[in-house]
Parts: sequence; structure tokens; C-alpha cells
Amino acid sequence: MGELDSIFNPGSVAVVGASRTPGKLGYEILKNIIDAGFRGKIYPVNPKADEIMGLKCYHSIFEIPEPVDLAVIVIPARFVPDTVKEAVRKGVKGFVVISGGFREVGGEGVELERRLVRAVREGGARLIGPNCQGINNPHVGLCATWPLSTRRGPVAVVSQSGTVAAFMATGLEGEGIGMSKFAALGNKADVDEVDMLNYLADDPDTEVVALYLEGTSRGRELMEALRRCASRKPVVVIKAGRTETGAEAVASHTGTLAGSAEVYEAVFRQTGAVSVDTLEEFFDAAKALAAFKPPKGPRVMVITSSGGSGILAADAIESRGMELAKLSEDVLSRLREELPHFCVIRNPLDLTGSAYAELYDKALEITKDHDGIDSYILIFGDPIAGAFEVIEKHLRETEKPILVAYLGGGDVEVEERRKFYEAGIPVYPTPERAVVALYNLWRSRKE
Amino acid sequence: MGELDSIFNPGSVAVVGASRTPGKLGYEILKNIIDAGFRGKIYPVNPKADEIMGLKCYHSIFEIPEPVDLAVIVIPARFVPDTVKEAVRKGVKGFVVISGGFREVGGEGVELERRLVRAVREGGARLIGPNCQGINNPHVGLCATWPLSTRRGPVAVVSQSGTVAAFMATGLEGEGIGMSKFAALGNKADVDEVDMLNYLADDPDTEVVALYLEGTSRGRELMEALRRCASRKPVVVIKAGRTETGAEAVASHTGTLAGSAEVYEAVFRQTGAVSVDTLEEFFDAAKALAAFKPPKGPRVMVITSSGGSGILAADAIESRGMELAKLSEDVLSRLREELPHFCVIRNPLDLTGSAYAELYDKALEITKDHDGIDSYILIFGDPIAGAFEVIEKHLRETEKPILVAYLGGGDVEVEERRKFYEAGIPVYPTPERAVVALYNLWRSRKE
Repeated sequence: MGELDSIFNPGSVAVVGASRTPGKLGYEILKNIIDAGFRGKIYPVNPKADEIMGLKCYHSIFEIPEPVDLAVIVIPARFVPDTVKEAVRKGVKGFVVISGGFREVGGEGVELERRLVRAVREGGARLIGPNCQGINNPHVGLCATWPLSTRRGPVAVVSQSGTVAAFMATGLEGEGIGMSKFAALGNKADVDEVDMLNYLADDPDTEVVALYLEGTSRGRELMEALRRCASRKPVVVIKAGRTETGAEAVASHTGTLAGSAEVYEAVFRQTGAVSVDTLEEFFDAAKALAAFKPPKGPRVMVITSSGGSGILAADAIESRGMELAKLSEDVLSRLREELPHFCVIRNPLDLTGSAYAELYDKALEITKDHDGIDSYILIFGDPIAGAFEVIEKHLRETEKPILVAYLGGGDVEVEERRKFYEAGIPVYPTPERAVVALYNLWRSRKE
Repeated sequence: MGELDSIFNPGSVAVVGASRTPGKLGYEILKNIIDAGFRGKIYPVNPKADEIMGLKCYHSIFEIPEPVDLAVIVIPARFVPDTVKEAVRKGVKGFVVISGGFREVGGEGVELERRLVRAVREGGARLIGPNCQGINNPHVGLCATWPLSTRRGPVAVVSQSGTVAAFMATGLEGEGIGMSKFAALGNKADVDEVDMLNYLADDPDTEVVALYLEGTSRGRELMEALRRCASRKPVVVIKAGRTETGAEAVASHTGTLAGSAEVYEAVFRQTGAVSVDTLEEFFDAAKALAAFKPPKGPRVMVITSSGGSGILAADAIESRGMELAKLSEDVLSRLREELPHFCVIRNPLDLTGSAYAELYDKALEITKDHDGIDSYILIFGDPIAGAFEVIEKHLRETEKPILVAYLGGGDVEVEERRKFYEAGIPVYPTPERAVVALYNLWRSRKE
């Protein structure tokens, strides 16, 4: 068991500050843990209630007759240190303090945080937060955060920012990719990105780590943790505060030094982490990394029903330093023979607006063993039914990544997209976003 | 009346090749014209039917007893030139040829296109296409394209690529922005981007032009048309084929020379058109231009509930050469006095995860007359209800653009987003996309 298992894999959880009032955090958290189907015991704690959501409610954590592994705390900051002390005496080893009002507000909040950390350390326990958006382990139904996410999958989300974490969780849930772990670290008074990377490196459920980082107080350890983790599984990272303006905002947000953008960039490059520029690229890359192995080289085959979208893809491919695969005479003549006359036989292969799903199938069939192709961008630029079935079939047969963009397809697109989401196969809304995701997948390769 | 009014503002339309079979283009086009509530007469034409969708069907265009202004043609290419000749004799002045099988397939298609153009020109008529995805004028309910779009609005979409046009139409419809005109130009055998720009410059319903361009055979005229149009209303343009790879794909797609990226970039700069890099940026910019006047300067005020998102916004602002507004002592002290203690008073103004809609209202109220602020990025990074009402109110009271990003907000976000869409007020999914849209809005200013 990793040392953070009391937090992510507890046998029982107490929600201190559980509430009967919808809209309150103590309500949402308890409800999400119940609705996610947590496998262990759940103990609401609230001095003013005897029952909440059908569960017996305890007036203090000490009253709970059984052992408690994890305490999720949503009571006002001033009560937190003493409550944690009490919980530690009861043997609680994991804490998630969601409440704000600590170091981030200055003044007495700083002292409260110091007392909180002392209580945790004296008990040999571990703490996520305070001032954080909680944690989730969908593999055991422990959604101690919001919004509710239950889809199990390969992506671990680690973020100082709760909003960034929630943005990722929403997308990974909605598009059927799923998460292995979720940790919104907040003030990082105890557990920080270094601890999380070390834990996730060993976590068998985690195949991809998506890390949002503002800064670190442990530069050398971060570098080692990144290297260790990235040597085992892809790590995609977005570093906020890369500009002077952004760095000043970081200082006031979490009191950490953002550090020089160049230094961080060098660290990411040297450790094999894939760094990205925007939140959307962060999500798109995590999706691709969850589904595909990196391509063996930069040579991309584009198959499209939309000439224009094929050109936009070609522009994006060259801009990112990848290239269009050159097709052999053999492949070209087979394409010419087996595809209808209206198709434009080159790369991008333009099946034109008359395309239907079987043509994509045939084009993949003819090209898939071609050594000169490392990956595919498939663009459905019209209402093409059956797109999903073709992709799903070929992904079973090939190791080459196939990144799909679906756009301009009206109701048919909505339905096809739903099928991709249900199966957890990535689909992108524009050619450029599919290409950038492929580019980040390519960057994740081991040299 | 502009000379393209026979196409965009006809009193009557014939659909030649109308069909009773769902899924066929001749069915979809007729159905969309009917469903969009076209104000004039609609005449299906099909030699094998007497009635389609409750309308009397004519066996040839010549049989129609009344005058016909516009003929939308969806019959096989080889029949098109003679049909157009017949229609011209009947007095038809506008043609939209959706059918493919012309110049783009080479061989006899080239000759068919030549005959088609000759017939149109001899009749003093105008033609959009062939090989195109049709046209739309939601202001008269003329949706001679797909998917169905009926929302009236200020944006004209002009695109060689049908998929790009459909992508824009879908977004503008779904997010409540709406279109003034829509033209998927296809082979541009007659009407091209130059004609469209000149027409739209004079079109009172059009306040923004969104142009997707692969290349032009009329460089000088394009420059003049861009200059004329952009002097009256913002023009946002995406040029496909900016890389060598992309330019080769352009040549094979529509047979036009893509031209040097630098030359086009210079033309856009000199004429005041705003050029963008990706399809998503194209859409996001059109949305912003539809809703806001350009800010008077580069100084942006960021108000956020999410510290992390505020930092990402700050990074994006500096990366694009804009800047965070510096707040006066006066404004700072009012913010300190009137906002709760948990807010972090600076720019980005961090209302924190405890934020609620009234705090945004108060922050806007206090800062809105500050001379040092030219525009706003407002980030709702939590489930904050009432966001829409605050924005809607302040947009009535200020000329300063307020670009909204809403993310991480679960069900509340879905509901708030719906309200923004209904009102046609832009809302973006990430801080960076809101900032880039603001940047393009700023670039659209007249110096």
C-alpha cells in the first residue's frame, strides 16, 4: 500500500460537517460519495443531526464506533485544527480539508494552517488541502469532490486549482475517458505535487498523469518525481504563470514563486513530461494519451470528407513539425482502383462530400500496413453515419493512433459523437485540435 | 438591390432535383427551405413526382406558371448545363448548383463547368457553386443548405469549404448568435469571395463577415474588396494553405494557387481584416465581433472565482501583447471596503471559490467607470448561479466588452450557458479562448 492509500483507498470515510441543506458543500460532498457508490463505510458527522440522507449521523468523530481511515472536513477553519487532533487520536490516517480560511487569507489563517499541519504530522497522518476541492477515486466510488464523476479510467488529475481539476473531471467523465484518481491540492500544506507524482507512478490504475502546476517549493524533488513518473507513464503538464504577469498572479494566489518559465520548460523536457499551453490542449492531450500509444514517427496520413478541413489539418501538421506521410506507388494505385472515381487520391486523401463510412474503412484497410504511415487523422466533415463502427474496428486491429475530428455533421454528428463517448474513444471538434493532440502524443514517446 | 439579391433575396425558389427520399440532398434542401419558413414561393421540380412534402411538384422548371428568381440545383452534373439554359430562358436570375462532378473531378467535368458558366453568363444571371453546400439567408427563411439554421443575426459566413461553413453555422445557431447570410462557394465558377465581400459590404443585415479562404484568382480585386468591406464592418478571415504542405493540398482541392502565406498576411494587415490561425479561433472571434465593439485599448480587467483560471488568463493576455489593467488606489480601496474579506484585491481580482453572482456585480459596478480599464474577462470557475443576469445587466450599461468564460460548474454551468445562448451573449469554455477572442476583437479596431 502506498502511503496515500488512507486518502485514496480508505475502508471508511467520515464527512465532518455533513449537511442536510442542498447547495452546502457538506451536503454535496456527502451526496456525491453516496451517489458514486463508495464501497466502504460512510459516517456523516454533525453535532446537530442524528440522520442525514438515511445514514446515522454522529455528533463528533469520536462517537463513531468503528475505525475511520479518512476524514473529509468541511467545517469553518477555526474549528479544523482541534477536530483533526481529535480524529488523529481516533486513529484517522487520511485528511482532506476542503474548508478555506487558512494561509490563503493571511493573518490568523496562517497560524490555523500551522496548527492543522502539526496535528496531522504528530499523528503520522497525511493531509490534502486545506482550501481545496477534494479528491476522487472512481475505482472505489470515492467522489469526495464536485461535480459527481464516477467513470473509471486511466487518467489521474492533479491540480492546485479546483476549477482546472473540475474542468478536466467534467470532460473526462462526459467523453467517457474516465479517471483513476483526482486530487485538487489547494494550499498543499502537506501533500503536494511531488507526493502525488510518486504515489501515481506506483498506482496500477493510473496510466496517464495530468498535472496543473503553479509552482513548487521543492524543485529538485519535483524533478526527480517527474522523471520517475514519466519513465513509467506519460505525464502531461500545464504550468500556469509562464509570463511575468501570470507569475505575479501566482504569487498572490498561492504564495509560491512561479519561477522562470525557461527553467520549468527545461525541467519538463529533461524529465520527459509533455508540457502544453492551454487548458483545452491539456484536456485534449490527456484524452489522446489515455487511448493511444505514441506513434513511431512523425508521418501522418489524413483521410477526410472535407477538402478544406484536410488543408487545415495539413497546415497544423507542418506547423507542429510533423509531416504528411508519402504514399508508395503501390498504395496509391490500390486506392485509385478500389475507391470511387470522385475521391482525390493523395495525402490528405479527400473522399469528398460524397463520402460514406465504408470508404474510410476501405482507405484504412488499404493503407494500414504501409510502413510509411505512423499515425492517422480522420476527419468526418459531413453527416456520416457509421463513423464510430469503422474507427472502433480498426483500433482493435492496429497499434497506430487514429485521431478523429468530427464536425459539420448536424444531428448525425451528435449521435456519432455519443457513440464515441460511450466507448471512451477520443473524438475532437476540429481538425487542428486533433492534430495538436496527436502532436502531444508524439512528444510523449521515449527516444 | 445588390446584384446577388436574386440569390439571397428571391421572391421565389425552385428546387431542381427535389426528392421524396429522406437522406437525399434533394430532400434535405427542400425540407430545410420549408422548415426555415421561406417567405416566398417554393417550387419542387422533379420529372417523376406530382407532389413533394405537400407542395405541387413540376416536371420541369419551364412548367412553373409563375416567375422564378432562384433555382437551387441538385441533379447529376451532366444534366445541369441544359437545365440552367432552360431556366435562364424562363428568366431565372440566380443559381445555386450544389451538385458535384465539375471541374474538381477533371476530364469532362471541366467542360461541363464551362458550359454551365456560359449558360449563366448568357442569361445575365449569377451562380454560386457548383460543387458547393448551398446558401442561407435566415432573415427571409431561405435555408438552401444543411444543417438547418434559422437564427437571424449579424454574422455572414463565406467559405469555399462546405464543412467549415457548416461548422460555423452550427455554432452560431447553437449559441444564439445567428447569421445574416451564409454562402458555401464550392468551385467558385462565377461568384467568388470578391463578389461576396462587395455584396456584404452593402448588406445592412451583415455586421460581421467571417471568410474562409483557400486562395484567389483575383488578387488585386480581393484586396480592394477586403479594404472596402473592412472599412465598414469587421472581417475575420482564416486562410487555409499557409504552410507548404497545406498549399499543396489547396492546389489539389480547388485548383487555386494558395499563394505565399506572407503575402496574404500582409494583405490582411493592410486591409484591416483580422486573420486567425484555427477554426475554433475563427468561430470565437466571429462571436466576439458579433456582440461587442473593439476595446479602446489593451488594458484588461480579469474577475474570477478561480485563482488558477485567472493566472491562465493573465498568461494568455501577456502572450498576446495585451496587458492587465492597473487599478487606481481609489478603486482598490473601494474593492477592499465593499467586497468580503476572502476576496483577493488585485488584478486578476480573485473572488475565490466562495464567490456568488452579486460579487461579480459589485466588482463590475465599482470598476466600470475606471479609465484604466478597456475590457473585461469574467471567469466563472465554480457552479455560480445568476452569472447570466449580472452580465446581461452590465452589457446594457457599458460599451466596454465583457468576455465570459464559464467552466468547472457542473449542472449550474449547463443551465447558465443555456441562458447565455438564448440571449446570444458570447460565453467561452476556457479562459484562454475568451482572451484570444478579446485579442481578435482588439485587433479589429480602426487605428
